Amino acid sequence: MAPRVLICGDLVWAHGECKAMFDGVAEVIVMDSPDRADFLANLQPGSKYAGVVAVYRHNVSADRIGVFDREIVGALASSVKWIAHNGAGYDQIDVAACIEHGIIVSNTPGAVDDATATNALYLMISALRDFSFGERNLRAGKWKTGVSAARTHDLTGRTLAVLGLGGIGLRLAELAHAFPMRIIYHSRTPAPDAPTWAEYFPVEKLDEFLAQADVLSVHVPLRPETVGLVGEDMIRKLKKGAVIVNTARGKVIDEEAMIRALEDGHLGAIGLDVFPDEPEVNPRLLEFRNATLLPHMGTETQDSQKKMEIRALSNVLDYLTKGKGKDVVPEHKDLVAKL
Amino acid sequence: MAPRVLICGDLVWAHGECKAMFDGVAEVIVMDSPDRADFLANLQPGSKYAGVVAVYRHNVSADRIGVFDREIVGALASSVKWIAHNGAGYDQIDVAACIEHGIIVSNTPGAVDDATATNALYLMISALRDFSFGERNLRAGKWKTGVSAARTHDLTGRTLAVLGLGGIGLRLAELAHAFPMRIIYHSRTPAPDAPTWAEYFPVEKLDEFLAQADVLSVHVPLRPETVGLVGEDMIRKLKKGAVIVNTARGKVIDEEAMIRALEDGHLGAIGLDVFPDEPEVNPRLLEFRNATLLPHMGTETQDSQKKMEIRALSNVLDYLTKGKGKDVVPEHKDLVAKL
Repeated sequence: MAPRVLICGDLVWAHGECKAMFDGVAEVIVMDSPDRADFLANLQPGSKYAGVVAVYRHNVSADRIGVFDREIVGALASSVKWIAHNGAGYDQIDVAACIEHGIIVSNTPGAVDDATATNALYLMISALRDFSFGERNLRAGKWKTGVSAARTHDLTGRTLAVLGLGGIGLRLAELAHAFPMRIIYHSRTPAPDAPTWAEYFPVEKLDEFLAQADVLSVHVPLRPETVGLVGEDMIRKLKKGAVIVNTARGKVIDEEAMIRALEDGHLGAIGLDVFPDEPEVNPRLLEFRNATLLPHMGTETQDSQKKMEIRALSNVLDYLTKGKGKDVVPEHKDLVAKL
Repeated sequence: MAPRVLICGDLVWAHGECKAMFDGVAEVIVMDSPDRADFLANLQPGSKYAGVVAVYRHNVSADRIGVFDREIVGALASSVKWIAHNGAGYDQIDVAACIEHGIIVSNTPGAVDDATATNALYLMISALRDFSFGERNLRAGKWKTGVSAARTHDLTGRTLAVLGLGGIGLRLAELAHAFPMRIIYHSRTPAPDAPTWAEYFPVEKLDEFLAQADVLSVHVPLRPETVGLVGEDMIRKLKKGAVIVNTARGKVIDEEAMIRALEDGHLGAIGLDVFPDEPEVNPRLLEFRNATLLPHMGTETQDSQKKMEIRALSNVLDYLTKGKGKDVVPEHKDLVAKL
């Protein structure tokens, strides 16, 4: 009997590719449960999802069955060996529970780099140039009233501080370097693929890193230790008038601390694609003229969406045909080394 | 007696520099007329602006005394030899009249390249990624409703068609090349400083140029022969779903033809910083979800404004001290060659 693969969350762009990729390799089943109870019930032996060995997962599945927490992971564990998540951020999966059950989790890191970094570049331009305010003004029939060059800066020659030089941060650095902006970055260890023009600031020089930033762009994953990482302390070490851009996850920033710094003028502007309680947006953010706010559109391009779907499906296919997929999330490197 | 220089339009950023630059060289007078009649009256012999040899001009002066048309140029002609315009576009000056009267006109081309190209890059990203709509949606409390990846594209790998590879077009090409986008350009003659990766399309290949464009970005000056240059004919030769970006002058595009192409879906999106009758904006433009509209903010940064002021003042200073300034507009190359 062919192994069974469960598509958990819609395949929008790569239907044809999915059919072709798994032809003769696996039976592809689409998760169609309306809620969590139905999903869990159908994982029982003899039910429609029973015996699936690999799961393709997209965050939209959470709308129906919730996140992949300990309960769902436990229910999958009797047969599932690989969860291929579509997305760079996999905070909706309890990776610790997966590790306990010997389930490997992969994500789609590189596929989102370009689209998300472009999103960050857009937010940075808007924040430095006051463009979001300008458009709101025009649409309110006020043309340039209140637009002031005194609030605005060229990107060229300014310093972009990248917090976390993974794929997205590195891609943003490349795009900003074209102006050029000066690029500095902080991460726990130097990025092995960092270009020579990207200056590394280790944790001992974090204060200096923050003090030199005209723009701080956040590119760290959401983990227990990164919740509120950009808090009062970090924000106040930025120079007055600095800009914060966040395309990672809302909870990485202490939103209240950020709002205080906007209120008292310490921050010059913000550009956010992500919020702590999406789809809710703190209404106080809407009151700041110098805020550019997007509804989590970092990877919203058909090109990137298709790349991500194919990349996640490829990881499933590689697992089925070679015993090992790519893009395994760093939490269980050891486990994979044994494969 | 020291020669007199007239500041026509506010110096906002370079007050101190202006004072220092002309110290011991010229007397600097600020135009403070409330209207055209007062201005013209004060150019008469014995009046406060009489005998000025050089004029620094900014478009804001038009709010009080109107544009530098044949009437104003004629009134200046008895003493003025140089008009140093602050701005890349000098369509508010009747250059033909200046030439007749032997007045040289300079502009500030390079100073605006970076800021205006960044503006065009922003509009291109917004148009391809649907970001302006996304933000309007979020601010209306609708989060992602109606946002669809199907409407959106990465910049990477797409073709940017630059209409007019002057300083601004070239700078945009450099920034877009960083993704990379494929860069093609059309102008009357090949740009002497075009990089090798920018592919030239002469007028015989204009149809091909348009057919290959994912984004057409307009960078031609407003002259009688460029009014409506991007009209029905050009727009329909673009592929379906193509994007138009305009940071040059509104009248270079036939607005009605562009609106028709948005209405019937031929154009995928538009990004405009300029409009035919600023500060008026055609209200029909506000109805398109896929329109990003800025109130002519292309050079609105304090960095660029200061660069432009100093560059225009430097042209005046060079004229006074060396008999010849830089940045003479192309219309009177011959005249300058004789200097």
